[in-house]
Amino acid sequence: MTASIDPIDLASRLIAAPSITPATGAVFDVLEDALGAIGFTVHRFIAGEAPDGPVENLFAARGSGGPHFAYAGHLDVVPPGVGWTSDPFIPEIRGELLYGRGAVDMKGSIAAFVAAAARSADHPGTLSLIITGDEEGPAVHGTVELIDWMRVNGHQPDLCLVGEPTSVHRLGDMIKIGRRGSVNMWIEVAGTQGHVAYPHMADNPIPALVRILSRIDVIELDQGNDWFQASNIEVTDIEVGNPATNVIPALAKARLSIRFNDLHSGEALVERIRAICTEESPNASLVARISGEAFLTEPGRLSDIVSGAIRRVTGLVPELSTTGGTSDARFLSKLCPVVEFGLSNATMHKLDEAAAIADIHALTEIFELVIREALAS
Amino acid sequence: MTASIDPIDLASRLIAAPSITPATGAVFDVLEDALGAIGFTVHRFIAGEAPDGPVENLFAARGSGGPHFAYAGHLDVVPPGVGWTSDPFIPEIRGELLYGRGAVDMKGSIAAFVAAAARSADHPGTLSLIITGDEEGPAVHGTVELIDWMRVNGHQPDLCLVGEPTSVHRLGDMIKIGRRGSVNMWIEVAGTQGHVAYPHMADNPIPALVRILSRIDVIELDQGNDWFQASNIEVTDIEVGNPATNVIPALAKARLSIRFNDLHSGEALVERIRAICTEESPNASLVARISGEAFLTEPGRLSDIVSGAIRRVTGLVPELSTTGGTSDARFLSKLCPVVEFGLSNATMHKLDEAAAIADIHALTEIFELVIREALAS
Ligand SMILES: [Zn+2]
Ligand SMILES: [Zn+2]
Repeated sequence: MTASIDPIDLASRLIAAPSITPATGAVFDVLEDALGAIGFTVHRFIAGEAPDGPVENLFAARGSGGPHFAYAGHLDVVPPGVGWTSDPFIPEIRGELLYGRGAVDMKGSIAAFVAAAARSADHPGTLSLIITGDEEGPAVHGTVELIDWMRVNGHQPDLCLVGEPTSVHRLGDMIKIGRRGSVNMWIEVAGTQGHVAYPHMADNPIPALVRILSRIDVIELDQGNDWFQASNIEVTDIEVGNPATNVIPALAKARLSIRFNDLHSGEALVERIRAICTEESPNASLVARISGEAFLTEPGRLSDIVSGAIRRVTGLVPELSTTGGTSDARFLSKLCPVVEFGLSNATMHKLDEAAAIADIHALTEIFELVIREALAS
Repeated sequence: MTASIDPIDLASRLIAAPSITPATGAVFDVLEDALGAIGFTVHRFIAGEAPDGPVENLFAARGSGGPHFAYAGHLDVVPPGVGWTSDPFIPEIRGELLYGRGAVDMKGSIAAFVAAAARSADHPGTLSLIITGDEEGPAVHGTVELIDWMRVNGHQPDLCLVGEPTSVHRLGDMIKIGRRGSVNMWIEVAGTQGHVAYPHMADNPIPALVRILSRIDVIELDQGNDWFQASNIEVTDIEVGNPATNVIPALAKARLSIRFNDLHSGEALVERIRAICTEESPNASLVARISGEAFLTEPGRLSDIVSGAIRRVTGLVPELSTTGGTSDARFLSKLCPVVEFGLSNATMHKLDEAAAIADIHALTEIFELVIREALAS
């Protein structure tokens, strides 16, 4: 028999430990104490240095052997911004809602999972938590380093639930079974500055950049597939920076952002855009940064377990979605099947972030069912 | 019999009166004294207020009735910049050259013309000088207002020589019989800002701007004609100003500069570009500023007079050109045939601006021949 944990109380104590990304220290102490009280062995380590760190990471496990079910999440939060009704780091219940930075993204979710774990101490196999202090920031020293540590130390989950706030209008209306990939590219075309009255003595880089962007603009990457919407290219910036009306500029730059589904790889997209640049101008160059590849956990046992638990508690059948931005699930998906499910995301990253008290309790029930199903032999 | 005037001495005295654009005062006193001494009636007036003024303007005439031959020029100079060998406003003769800001553009030319006028006091008809203190600046209160004043007061030249420095390698190798027109345009496309992960909730203005610029880029306005090189469009700037890689911007801007020959009007070009904008996007708008229309003084009596005088003094047959930027000849061409001729422009607007002493003397001889021919009955 382990201690009982009130998820509202634990969520409040996590909110009360400010943890603007990247996070270390007190907020992890709160979580470690709670996990220790219900039989988890906790390992914490700090990784990285400024500007991408330091980042605190926590791995906790209870039980041994298979099956191994893991919950993943983050204790860091985005900066609160100015204009809150109450202090963002002093949890406050007003009406039916718990207010505070991180209430939905995702201290409320972590608290619900820990409370669910307290109620299911008799599970077979291994239950673990993979918790980082940097999901909202560069995410260089967070979940990636946790996965490295787990590999070295022989912790290999069979299924993983990421507790990000995936619900939209009502708790349980959406879970994520994959995410699109994301890549940013920076194109530069060099030219030769000159006077507009003497264009033959100059080389305007803008026409080549416009040709490149015209060709990019008409690309249709795909039509989407069963689980993904169509991939999309946006030109998000163009910069020449020439204040003089009578001067032909020496440099023209543009930036693209591509969100792509599992029909593409980031590297192949970079090479495709690079080829267009090369074809249009010998003076064009391209730099790219792939934030994450697309991934999909095909609907199957894990999504069935999560959907079933949601249906039993809320009556809703969740939509299986792959929309939205990136999350740490892009790293975890390399370990095992991953599904994301959590609170309603209406106020995440906004002023007056708040989670419904009833939702946190319902989420605790859902997580308890998921733990029991996932660890059933 | 009028006084004799040494053009080097007069040019030096004009240089010694600093007159960074817009100019008023002392430099006009120097010119008025010289013109008064050789029989000219001088009218001066100041026009405009900051930031485009105040600007001093001077009209001087000698004789009466027709024919009426006018010389036009400006006493303002561009700022000297830093790094001169000697003080830019202390005229200094070193070797064969007279140094000082304005030596070639165009105090040396004005001094040569006044010296030529001193030698030809016995001319029939009317000889006049149209001199402004703002050709290098916005030129709003300069030659335009002089032309208005002349119209009101019944001064209508038959032929006009603008004394701008048109020679390139040697004095007399080039005169200008026209100038291209110039128009700048600013295009803006408005959109709706959003997140790249949710493009259907945003409206990226960049694709429409790129389509507009693509169409502009392939325009061939003309192939040039007998007297003009081909008209040319340059996109000189594009600005979006979006620092965030995951944000679709709300506004995209571009700027064009068109230099056009006499096959076009500025207004027609503006309407042509405006039509492209309208066709490509309901959210595109265009603002234009026409700096000057193209004009041409067809080769004829005036260019013959100037070319003939140049040949007799220098042995060169000048090229009749329409190249380069704009000058006040764009305004004067509405009054009567206009040709531009003056000193070598190698050092104009540069550090250590200098005119060859021999060139100023030769220019004086050329101007004397031009005055005699232009005013021959
Ligand atoms: Zn999150
Ligand atoms: Zn000038």
